[in-house]
Amino acid sequence: MTRIRRDAAPTTRADVLAVEEPLEMRVNGRRLAVTMRTPGNDVELAAGFLVAEGVITRAGDVSVARYCAGATGADDLTNTYNVLDVTLAPEVDPPGPESSRNFTTTSACGVCGKTSIESVTLRSAFDPADDGLLVDADAMLRLPDRLRAGQSVFDKTGGLHAAALIDGHSGEIRVLREDVGRHNAVDKVIGWAVLADLLPLRGHILQVSGRASFELVQKAAMAGVPVLSAVSAPSSLAAELAEERGITLAGFVRGDSMVLYARPDRVQVTPARSSSHI
Amino acid sequence: MTRIRRDAAPTTRADVLAVEEPLEMRVNGRRLAVTMRTPGNDVELAAGFLVAEGVITRAGDVSVARYCAGATGADDLTNTYNVLDVTLAPEVDPPGPESSRNFTTTSACGVCGKTSIESVTLRSAFDPADDGLLVDADAMLRLPDRLRAGQSVFDKTGGLHAAALIDGHSGEIRVLREDVGRHNAVDKVIGWAVLADLLPLRGHILQVSGRASFELVQKAAMAGVPVLSAVSAPSSLAAELAEERGITLAGFVRGDSMVLYARPDRVQVTPARSSSHI
Repeated sequence: MTRIRRDAAPTTRADVLAVEEPLEMRVNGRRLAVTMRTPGNDVELAAGFLVAEGVITRAGDVSVARYCAGATGADDLTNTYNVLDVTLAPEVDPPGPESSRNFTTTSACGVCGKTSIESVTLRSAFDPADDGLLVDADAMLRLPDRLRAGQSVFDKTGGLHAAALIDGHSGEIRVLREDVGRHNAVDKVIGWAVLADLLPLRGHILQVSGRASFELVQKAAMAGVPVLSAVSAPSSLAAELAEERGITLAGFVRGDSMVLYARPDRVQVTPARSSSHI
Repeated sequence: MTRIRRDAAPTTRADVLAVEEPLEMRVNGRRLAVTMRTPGNDVELAAGFLVAEGVITRAGDVSVARYCAGATGADDLTNTYNVLDVTLAPEVDPPGPESSRNFTTTSACGVCGKTSIESVTLRSAFDPADDGLLVDADAMLRLPDRLRAGQSVFDKTGGLHAAALIDGHSGEIRVLREDVGRHNAVDKVIGWAVLADLLPLRGHILQVSGRASFELVQKAAMAGVPVLSAVSAPSSLAAELAEERGITLAGFVRGDSMVLYARPDRVQVTPARSSSHI
């Protein structure tokens, strides 16, 4: 890389970049999706993706996950570790051609006439709406710093998103994952949880490094997470879906303040330590 | 929304959020993809997506694009403006089931054994490698500020990505688009260009607000853009693909400095106005 500074001579040196490679995810031998991801925790990534797609909800739903070796020769050395095949337990229905993300042929007007939110929403096996978790606002304000402190690669590359799952009662970070893709980082976290048979994630907080999109709220809903906290802004549809699913949605969570877009009742504000009442 | 500040009472007020809605893109009546996007410039979005997929390269490749009215009733009022059907010119091949983004059934080991980059790269009709554009480093350093100044929605919501196409010779911003999705903002910009029959985009710079991912470099390559400039970090595969395609890739372009990850030869550094030689 060449670094160029105003009023200085360019300098050239080696650089550390966040690694990005494609992962083809298959289910029972059939290609489901290709995602650009940071290699590592691929089984978690695939498991989390399958939770988000409504395919699995517990560790026993997956029989085995394995990298697919090259088909072009008999030599296992051609395994690129970029194709992962997940075999589901016999009783689990594989994602059908009606999967929300598929691109299969259809000339039926499947989406028109429905409201937009219905058309892309998946039904969740879990209902976070009645989760009685109460979180201290001060503790939530500290989460982005804790997320940042827990990131191992970010400081070197500046290029990775992070997601963490926090026990809302003890405050403990249970798992933290990084990825070039925001959604992948969340899939890896939820995949870790489903493989540990922790779903539904009642009493947990999902903290993410970037924005809160519709899809992240949907992933939280599919895993039964009652609180989603983001460093940046949510979209309108993210706020709408969070309200509908009863998920507490916090945005712009930064040091001294945050904004709650849905279900603010789960966040407890400690009385100000001001002297106004003395 | 409820705003919570440390040591202050919560305040509640209405908030402006970046709008996000699903868009189902169809080609010749067949569903190709569903993307979460900021409504507006949907025809550009679909056109840019089709450029990136290698389906179209000029305005004449599209016969007509129209929103699909509701199929559930005869009433046009059910049109949600969230389904757009693009009819291609008769001589244009629609994207096949082998499209890079499809999820169709295959048990063949299509990706294994190839190098990862080959497996996800599309062939471009254009070759930016020999583009003789030379850009002044100072002018490039100013691009992120100009992008930010041109954004209309960002200041209100904090939630939108932006992409702009700059004439590398005159410095003029030809088009700027915003979207909740980074890739969508780029698709809208490139879609604007293809519908104006400006492809290949020789002599142009594509400036983006976020990271430079593999997919953004690929979109630049498919449109024949010789310079991609990003405010944040590129991924390793983005740098690799930029090098392979002969695209100048700049990252961390911020005020006083930037880093060039591929083809630095197109960036001209004005001699420092220091007094060291006087």
